[in-house]
Amino acid sequence: MGELTSYRLSEIGEANCRIWGRYSGKLDPLALFWTGSGIEWNVQASELWVDVETDYDCHEQWMSVLVNGAHVSRQMLPKGRSEICLFRNMNSQETKTIRLMKDVQAMSDDERACFLIHGVRTDGTFHPVEPRAYKFEFIGDSITSGEGTIGAKKEWDWISMFFSSVHDYATLVSEACGAECHIISQSGWGTLTGWDNDPRHALPLYYEKVCGLLKGERNLAYGAGEDYDFSKWQPDAVIVNLGTNDMSAFDQPEWRDDKTGQTFKQHKDEDGSLIKEDAERFEQAVVGFLGKLRTYNPKAHLVWTYGMLGSPLLRLIEHAVLTYRAQTGDENVAFVLLPDTTSESVGSREHPGKKSHEAAAQVLTNYLKAYLAAK
Amino acid sequence: MGELTSYRLSEIGEANCRIWGRYSGKLDPLALFWTGSGIEWNVQASELWVDVETDYDCHEQWMSVLVNGAHVSRQMLPKGRSEICLFRNMNSQETKTIRLMKDVQAMSDDERACFLIHGVRTDGTFHPVEPRAYKFEFIGDSITSGEGTIGAKKEWDWISMFFSSVHDYATLVSEACGAECHIISQSGWGTLTGWDNDPRHALPLYYEKVCGLLKGERNLAYGAGEDYDFSKWQPDAVIVNLGTNDMSAFDQPEWRDDKTGQTFKQHKDEDGSLIKEDAERFEQAVVGFLGKLRTYNPKAHLVWTYGMLGSPLLRLIEHAVLTYRAQTGDENVAFVLLPDTTSESVGSREHPGKKSHEAAAQVLTNYLKAYLAAK
Amino acid sequence: MGELTSYRLSEIGEANCRIWGRYSGKLDPLALFWTGSGIEWNVQASELWVDVETDYDCHEQWMSVLVNGAHVSRQMLPKGRSEICLFRNMNSQETKTIRLMKDVQAMSDDERACFLIHGVRTDGTFHPVEPRAYKFEFIGDSITSGEGTIGAKKEWDWISMFFSSVHDYATLVSEACGAECHIISQSGWGTLTGWDNDPRHALPLYYEKVCGLLKGERNLAYGAGEDYDFSKWQPDAVIVNLGTNDMSAFDQPEWRDDKTGQTFKQHKDEDGSLIKEDAERFEQAVVGFLGKLRTYNPKAHLVWTYGMLGSPLLRLIEHAVLTYRAQTGDENVAFVLLPDTTSESVGSREHPGKKSHEAAAQVLTNYLKAYLAAK
Amino acid sequence: MGELTSYRLSEIGEANCRIWGRYSGKLDPLALFWTGSGIEWNVQASELWVDVETDYDCHEQWMSVLVNGAHVSRQMLPKGRSEICLFRNMNSQETKTIRLMKDVQAMSDDERACFLIHGVRTDGTFHPVEPRAYKFEFIGDSITSGEGTIGAKKEWDWISMFFSSVHDYATLVSEACGAECHIISQSGWGTLTGWDNDPRHALPLYYEKVCGLLKGERNLAYGAGEDYDFSKWQPDAVIVNLGTNDMSAFDQPEWRDDKTGQTFKQHKDEDGSLIKEDAERFEQAVVGFLGKLRTYNPKAHLVWTYGMLGSPLLRLIEHAVLTYRAQTGDENVAFVLLPDTTSESVGSREHPGKKSHEAAAQVLTNYLKAYLAAK
Repeated sequence: MGELTSYRLSEIGEANCRIWGRYSGKLDPLALFWTGSGIEWNVQASELWVDVETDYDCHEQWMSVLVNGAHVSRQMLPKGRSEICLFRNMNSQETKTIRLMKDVQAMSDDERACFLIHGVRTDGTFHPVEPRAYKFEFIGDSITSGEGTIGAKKEWDWISMFFSSVHDYATLVSEACGAECHIISQSGWGTLTGWDNDPRHALPLYYEKVCGLLKGERNLAYGAGEDYDFSKWQPDAVIVNLGTNDMSAFDQPEWRDDKTGQTFKQHKDEDGSLIKEDAERFEQAVVGFLGKLRTYNPKAHLVWTYGMLGSPLLRLIEHAVLTYRAQTGDENVAFVLLPDTTSESVGSREHPGKKSHEAAAQVLTNYLKAYLAAK
Repeated sequence: MGELTSYRLSEIGEANCRIWGRYSGKLDPLALFWTGSGIEWNVQASELWVDVETDYDCHEQWMSVLVNGAHVSRQMLPKGRSEICLFRNMNSQETKTIRLMKDVQAMSDDERACFLIHGVRTDGTFHPVEPRAYKFEFIGDSITSGEGTIGAKKEWDWISMFFSSVHDYATLVSEACGAECHIISQSGWGTLTGWDNDPRHALPLYYEKVCGLLKGERNLAYGAGEDYDFSKWQPDAVIVNLGTNDMSAFDQPEWRDDKTGQTFKQHKDEDGSLIKEDAERFEQAVVGFLGKLRTYNPKAHLVWTYGMLGSPLLRLIEHAVLTYRAQTGDENVAFVLLPDTTSESVGSREHPGKKSHEAAAQVLTNYLKAYLAAK
Repeated sequence: MGELTSYRLSEIGEANCRIWGRYSGKLDPLALFWTGSGIEWNVQASELWVDVETDYDCHEQWMSVLVNGAHVSRQMLPKGRSEICLFRNMNSQETKTIRLMKDVQAMSDDERACFLIHGVRTDGTFHPVEPRAYKFEFIGDSITSGEGTIGAKKEWDWISMFFSSVHDYATLVSEACGAECHIISQSGWGTLTGWDNDPRHALPLYYEKVCGLLKGERNLAYGAGEDYDFSKWQPDAVIVNLGTNDMSAFDQPEWRDDKTGQTFKQHKDEDGSLIKEDAERFEQAVVGFLGKLRTYNPKAHLVWTYGMLGSPLLRLIEHAVLTYRAQTGDENVAFVLLPDTTSESVGSREHPGKKSHEAAAQVLTNYLKAYLAAK
Repeated sequence: MGELTSYRLSEIGEANCRIWGRYSGKLDPLALFWTGSGIEWNVQASELWVDVETDYDCHEQWMSVLVNGAHVSRQMLPKGRSEICLFRNMNSQETKTIRLMKDVQAMSDDERACFLIHGVRTDGTFHPVEPRAYKFEFIGDSITSGEGTIGAKKEWDWISMFFSSVHDYATLVSEACGAECHIISQSGWGTLTGWDNDPRHALPLYYEKVCGLLKGERNLAYGAGEDYDFSKWQPDAVIVNLGTNDMSAFDQPEWRDDKTGQTFKQHKDEDGSLIKEDAERFEQAVVGFLGKLRTYNPKAHLVWTYGMLGSPLLRLIEHAVLTYRAQTGDENVAFVLLPDTTSESVGSREHPGKKSHEAAAQVLTNYLKAYLAAK
């Protein structure tokens, strides 16, 4: 082991860093917003430490580390700034691929929540990171946030510990296809409203921003609220997995904003079927979001997926996807049903567990590989 | 064991028989044309014999027997008429469900090929057969004929032995969904042409007939060439699995009819891409077939599937399905990609093996269950 | 296809036939006694028919056919003599390995039960059959007879249909190790007594004969009762799977021979534990059988296995094996526990199903491969 | 979340702590020596922090945390004393089972290596920990240390990161059987010598001590070198998995102690077979160790296992086990072969990976469950 030297990320250089997840473009520090965000290096060294900083009111940060693709650690991060050793005592002649992942989703209701990477300390040198063959963007709710992929089946606490992007179908699909990925996700949110009819909890509203659903001065200072520069990273496919919370809204009471008195509610008929106008405004939300996705991702294959927690809206979503297609003439869009979660594959918090994410990833990987290989 | 009595099928009565597969409506004898065709009884008896007759020039018939849903026998049938014991020595008080399956596809090039059921001999009585919850029709090529689902991987002979409908995805999906099924399939055939550019080898050409691709006086006498009466058995879903041979045609030499001098050929460009006009006439064949299917099956969900032997035409087929939808306003149609066959899941004759059919069946079962459950 | 010629087995020649299972040494006809018995050829032909003869009072014969190792047919055989086509229409230049298996155990209570192979008819020629690397003999009860490896879970009829040696662990282990195998088995029988305390139903009593538990003039005429010539086929391992019925005897009423008045009974104490003397006479039966096996198989590795239907006698059997070892100094003997059958792996008649046999085969294959590779 | 209060372990009380692994009997602090060592609480709280201290010259410590049996974190521990949050923000009314595991083996060549637990800080209360149904002690080498169960296949560094007791067969067997376990293991060590012929690297030499292979003042101060009090925790089974390094010694050069000039070497003949005297002294080491194990564990079932990295010594070990049995009359001992590692199941450092440990655990679980259930 040689002498350790400290580097800021800008000193390592963008060519030697793969940034996972949307970011503001600033490196010193790098603010990680979304789950699955992180940084990857090819480093020839015997030892590597990372200088991180986190904060929160309520929901602490968790970090996973992958060494040469293997998941070797996952830990709750202390509040404040700390230096954490990612590896030590390794062969200094060998180049390792080290990937550090934010394992918890952006927490929209915790204004202080943040995760910053200030730099590293190492005895080695960094080598360039080659772009992967494909780029995928995943957009979804708690399923895509990997909620429930870790923890005992009996758990019901809604806490950071039980979120993990490592076991998430988005990560599994990306690894299987050799793709880089961005994940845009929020537990409880939907296409038109959140699970509780709250119309502010619709992911399309925030799509143009780096991480528009985050609040708080610091997150704003690090660029969460800025317009995202789509030109930097144009995905080959955008995979949306929304609808599960839109369905819940039909069964939940009316949402009411105490300040403004504004209300919202998706309704069912007395016979339990969805009221036509409400079904249609959900469909319009799907159509509208596809249009927005196309605006910002002109060449991407758009794929709407659904079904990991049941599929009552299957026909509506299929119809909406094809309505978008018919209205726009945009043919580069498809719907893929994902397998439902079973008693065997369920995880904590009655959410899809690892086996469910693996099954979904297999179907989606098959589809994306075939689609991208076809002419 | 009591005295055995002989019955013609009409004596057993239609209410006590489930006929699998399209048939002409005549029972004495029952002519089985398509693979997966057969008959099923609920019989309270200790012993049951079936009186069958087969013929062929080249391709002999094989029969599988399922006792209470378990596949207990599969055998090559002798040429001519014979009486075969399906079970004996069983508890005469128990009612068994006995299903006899034709395990080999309709053989369009063997005019003498036929499989007739004349009746049974038993010491017991027959009980009514309840309709299953769903009805599915599957239309395809060698994949749907179960070619390669049985036999050693090294086999290359194109013989009846290596066809089996028992292990076919169509049968697996139907069992998993609690559905009755009809299979319409022919090895080497396609949507527009056969694998060899022969335009007569397109399944849509024969769809209206009971089993229009069969020739020979006897098959005609048993009704193979008659118009099929679609009103008797309206499917909930029609699943098409064609395209694999349409792709082959692009790589095969021109077909030429020696008698008429007629020729046909699908072309590739010098760079290996499909020539636009030829791709379009394939797409038109897909669109046209969907229209024909809708004509005869007004309420069925139409599902075009593809991919078990690669998916180079994926985008064309998706496009054609959506073109049909746009042109007709018929929304009750979808495309589902099936998983490709791997070195692990391949069977004999480089065709999908049992594991490949199981994987395909899982994806298709997920889709159909979810679709049929959604509103 | 050329002209078909008939051959008796002696005309094919022993070098061109692999005989599976113990037989009397006579070929014209070959009488198959035990389950898994059969014959195998390497035949270069387009077509092959076999001339078989069966008889029975009660339990009909079933035959399985393997083509190049793949199980392509299984059928109930007609009573009397018949000619059955094993394959036709195949490439006449290719040599196929064809194996015909008796799929039903020797039926000790059916004096007329027999299965004879008289010869074949083919257009081809036979090539020599190479000996396999190992020879294994399996000795057991219904488990080793493959009872329950086929048929629906709900079946309770004790009939030939639900026996199969193809799916039997003995066959699976032999295939996995590249071994020839003989199976000596009888449903309901044990080491000391049958399940019902009948002391005549102990497999060791008949071990020296070709198939000593068969009765009836014809079976005797074909050599079932003759001394078996152990010198012809010395196994590398003898695997015993007995004990399950010996345990049942402790829970069953006394056996009584109505003719002689002889009685027998294994007893439990009032607290449910085995009475010491009865446990000991079971152990002595194990010790004695091991001694007999050694006498006839001087170099074989003796392996007592147990556990596929529970293992209450585990300690007694382990103790007996080691007592044999201590008393004789014979170290070439071992005990291997097999995995128990679960609700997932159970077959028909509450017996081990295919999955259970596969699990047992894996453990036993591991053991035998490791033992035979070690010095 | 209430006010947090600090507790030393003695304040929590032994009845409220399950100590995993051998320890000196002292709680303040608790020194964890062997891999899989740790502590478990049933704590009704919203938040829990642990106060740990580690040190090392070379090999850092790793800790895993299980919450209600689920493995939620694994992390490299900082050198020195630190407070680490195990959970926070949970439902304060629910009682959680929290288990903290030392994930790295005792490091015999790192005198400063230590892992101490000083206490906790929490807002909740501790409830009694019920003893598990069984107690198992596992004794082995790198396999039993879980070396290679984590990390990429390509890894070759011998570092703490690639050791894990969580995925170890010893842990898996214990969970499946509902057993507490102690693990006594050291990478590279054997029964008679280490892999390099070093006769000091034999686990039997240190069996009587708490953790006799550790050196250094601090470890001694915490009791590593004390006689272990076997009376506190008598195992139902002691499972030894040694022999793999004893075999390596036959292929390695002579060991030589530079200080004393002492040498040691296990030899092969010119034909590659083991020299008889050397094979015998290995066998005597096995016999001797079994005797020692019996001395300290009078009622335990002794099980020698072997085979996860090949089994060339299978016959020698089987023979040695039975020699011990014959010489002593002690019948409570058995040999169980474990499945070999394959290219599918291998992990990092060419050691058994997770799948290999799972396969071994299944065989051993079957055996132990059956043995413990039998009379």
